[in-house]
Order: sequence, then C-alpha cells, then structure tokens
Amino acid sequence: MKPFDNRPIGIFDSGLGGLTVAAALRRTLPGEAVAYLGDTARVPYGDKSVDAIIRFAHQDVEFMLSRGVKLVVAACNTVSAVALDSLKQDYPGEIILGMIDSGVRAVIESGAERVAVIGTRATVNSDAYRRGIHAVDHSIRVESIACPLFVPLAEEGITSGIIADEVFSVYLGNLRNNPPDALLLGCTHYPLFAEALQNYFDGKVRILDSATACASHTASFLETHKMAARPDNTPSFGCFVTDLPSEFHRHATRFLGTPPGRVERINL
Amino acid sequence: MKPFDNRPIGIFDSGLGGLTVAAALRRTLPGEAVAYLGDTARVPYGDKSVDAIIRFAHQDVEFMLSRGVKLVVAACNTVSAVALDSLKQDYPGEIILGMIDSGVRAVIESGAERVAVIGTRATVNSDAYRRGIHAVDHSIRVESIACPLFVPLAEEGITSGIIADEVFSVYLGNLRNNPPDALLLGCTHYPLFAEALQNYFDGKVRILDSATACASHTASFLETHKMAARPDNTPSFGCFVTDLPSEFHRHATRFLGTPPGRVERINL
Repeated sequence: MKPFDNRPIGIFDSGLGGLTVAAALRRTLPGEAVAYLGDTARVPYGDKSVDAIIRFAHQDVEFMLSRGVKLVVAACNTVSAVALDSLKQDYPGEIILGMIDSGVRAVIESGAERVAVIGTRATVNSDAYRRGIHAVDHSIRVESIACPLFVPLAEEGITSGIIADEVFSVYLGNLRNNPPDALLLGCTHYPLFAEALQNYFDGKVRILDSATACASHTASFLETHKMAARPDNTPSFGCFVTDLPSEFHRHATRFLGTPPGRVERINL
Repeated sequence: MKPFDNRPIGIFDSGLGGLTVAAALRRTLPGEAVAYLGDTARVPYGDKSVDAIIRFAHQDVEFMLSRGVKLVVAACNTVSAVALDSLKQDYPGEIILGMIDSGVRAVIESGAERVAVIGTRATVNSDAYRRGIHAVDHSIRVESIACPLFVPLAEEGITSGIIADEVFSVYLGNLRNNPPDALLLGCTHYPLFAEALQNYFDGKVRILDSATACASHTASFLETHKMAARPDNTPSFGCFVTDLPSEFHRHATRFLGTPPGRVERINL
C-alpha cells in the first residue's frame, strides 16, 4: 500500500460553481494538487434533461481520467443527483465522489427535524436529496425547491441586496413564514448567497453548504484510504474549460477566493 | 420562375427566444409553413465564445436544410451578430437571413438620432448593430449595453414588477436619467419586456423590436423573390429541439402567443 499519493484530485462542474468545492477542498487539504474542469461550452446543466446531463458527465469524467487524477469529484449537484450511478457503473475501477452523500450527511449531523433543500430544476426533479436523507432517517421532513434564477444571479455577482431578496421571496417566500430548522444549499453556486439567506431568514435557519460538506467528505476518504498527498507536497492547481477561458479567469476569483492560475481551453 | 413556393421557412434559435420571431412571422405571413429548431441542449448561446457559437450555428443550419426549407432565418441576435458571415460563406447557394439587418433598418426608419441597443454579451461584444447602423448613417449615436439577466428572467416568466424594474436599473439606470430616442431590443427574448420597459422609461423612449422587424423583412424578401406560399396554403408548424421537448412545449405558449403543435427531440 502506498503511504502517499501525490496525483491530483479531479474536480469537474458545468462551469464556475464547482470552484466553491475546490476552494473548500484547498482550505481543508492545502497539500493536494487539483485539476479542475468547467464545461463552460454547455453550461448550465441544471435546466437540461437527464439524458443530456449523463452524456455530458461521461465526457467530463473521461477527460479528468486522462489527466491522471487519483479520484474524481463530481462538484455539481445536478450531475451528482442524476448521473452518479451511471458514472460509477461505467467506471467501476475508478473512485468518483458526488455531492449528495456529503449533503445528506450534513443534514443528518445537523440534527434538523425539518429541512428545505434548494437546487436546480434537474436536482430537485431527481428527488435525490430527499431519497438520500430518508434512507438514513425517515422521520426528517424534507421540502425541495428549485431556484433557477440563483445561478445566473451568482454569475452576475448579484448575491445580496434588493434583487436577491426579491428573488428569494419568489422561491422561498412561503418558507420564510414557516422556517425549517435547516436549509441545504444543494447547488455549488449557492454558497455565494449564504450570508444574504442567513439575513433573509433573520438567522432562524441553519444554512448547510454541500460544498464544504463535500470537501470534508473527500478529506476523510483520502485519510481512510491512505491516499493523501505527502505533507510537504507543493501542489499545482490547473483549470480546464471548454469555452471562454479568459471570462472564466475573470469570474473565478469570486468563487475561489483567490485568482486561479493558468486556464486552458480544451474540447470534449 | 415558380409563382408560389409552399416549402417551409426554417427558423432556428438557441432555445425559446426565436419563437417571438416565429410568432411575428405567422402574424405577418399566416400562409407560410414553419419549421422551428431550438438548440435547447446548449442554450444559452449569448454568453459563449464566437468559435462555439459559429460551430453550433453551422449544425443548426445543416439540420434546417435537411428539412427542405426554402430559406433559413437565424432568429437569434447572437448568431446573427457573430456567425452570419461565416454561414453565408459556407452555404453560398442558400438564403440565410439574420436579425441585424432588420434591426438596423428599424432604427433608420425610426428617425432616432440617439439609440441604445440592448442584447446578450456576445451580441454587444460583436459591435454588429453599431457597425450596421453606422454603415447607413454615421451621425446616429449608438450605445450598446449587455443585459445577461434578461434571458433567464424571461424564461422564468418574470417580465414585469419589482425584480424586472430593479434589474432594468442595474443595466439601464444611467440611460433612464438621460433617455435616448429609441431602444432596440437586440435579443429575441426581450420583446417580453417591451411593456415593462416602456413604463420604466415613462413612455419617453420608442421601443424597437428586432423580432417584428425581422418578420417584416422576411415578408418583403418572399414577396420580392416570388417565393411566398400559395394564399390558400394550409401551413404546418413543426418544432424541433435538442433537449427537453415537454419543457419547451410548456413554455412555448408564452413566447408564441398560442400553444405549439408537436415538439420533436432531435440530435445535432
């Protein structure tokens, strides 16, 4: 058994959102190299069909594996919700982690009796979070709400203020009058709204973030399977996109917390 | 020379937006059959690169021609702004009409001395409208403003009210204080905001709609070239999409004014 594994972790998403997972992962595991893929030519995935999302996700995983990664994180709740079983079946020798298990674990650990899960249309339609939570604890009440405008708002940098609040009211107005114990941010773009949502619910709702949960999950996995990088590893962070590398570079800082390095354009 | 041509008109767009052109065309030319293609697997085009948009547009035109259409309307300002020259060059024997010429003509006919053109990021970056207007009349002052949130708002059915007004202020706040003579809606989704924009500018700005302009342009073209359908033609209206036909069907009525018929899913 190898005591250390310096190969990069592969992280992919439809676009920028998965960078919130990359950011959480780099905070949790500063020694790990990361190869990030954003499929910006076909972003967003969240409004598309299950068939299309599965097809795109397979191409994303193929590319990640071609980069020699030690495991692949599907850092997109939509892909995790609708395509993860298909990916695991088609790549039986590879390690592919998704967002749903981590999000479910965060809900269970929070002790919430009633939780609202927000995400894209495809994630909500898949019912993956409710099924995952009920597989562990059937007594937890779960409401799932699609918030299609959150992704374009986040990409425009509008994550608080009157427009954000009014859009919250479109999707979450009923919830505000009758707040759940916890709100799970079931889309990698949504952590950018965490503070504004906290205020919207007057601090009465615990905000759970699937990006942070996924980073913790990945850290435990590497620890358990003795696949972590050497502590003295000087890690690289490489970004690949299918369209508009300079736009990606410009917006990435908002999601990542720091500017990304080189962003390379590839074809899938 | 054939006195009548009952073959359908091909109209394509990245998604739903082009249906505003189809609606205007059916009002202007009720006898014409229409084949509509929405590339819903890759929508939106407006935030993508010139290379990607040209590649997608070529596949769209290939499909339209395979349906035996008599001419193709690129009912997408983004495609018209960045890909039309490339399409005309690669299909020299085919008739391909775009949105820009029609929009330019509407501006010239309005007599406006100062016009604001709003559209997607790709359309605005292309500078196609300003170049087109100045090719006819260099004295017209043209401002171009990208409004990336308008498309997702229209797709969510939010086309008036406080959210729409606040988003108008993000992009058009400066313009409101110093209104131009005319505002050209340079994206096929934007006619859905026409009334709210009229109110936002207190009726002081003339709203020009590139969808209606394109329908008139197409009608004149058919008349001039003796390519119109027989007056007693009972026209068909067929829709093709690359993803989510039932979602498309559900939203299409809002754009088209009437429910579409059968929506068929195809691969490009």
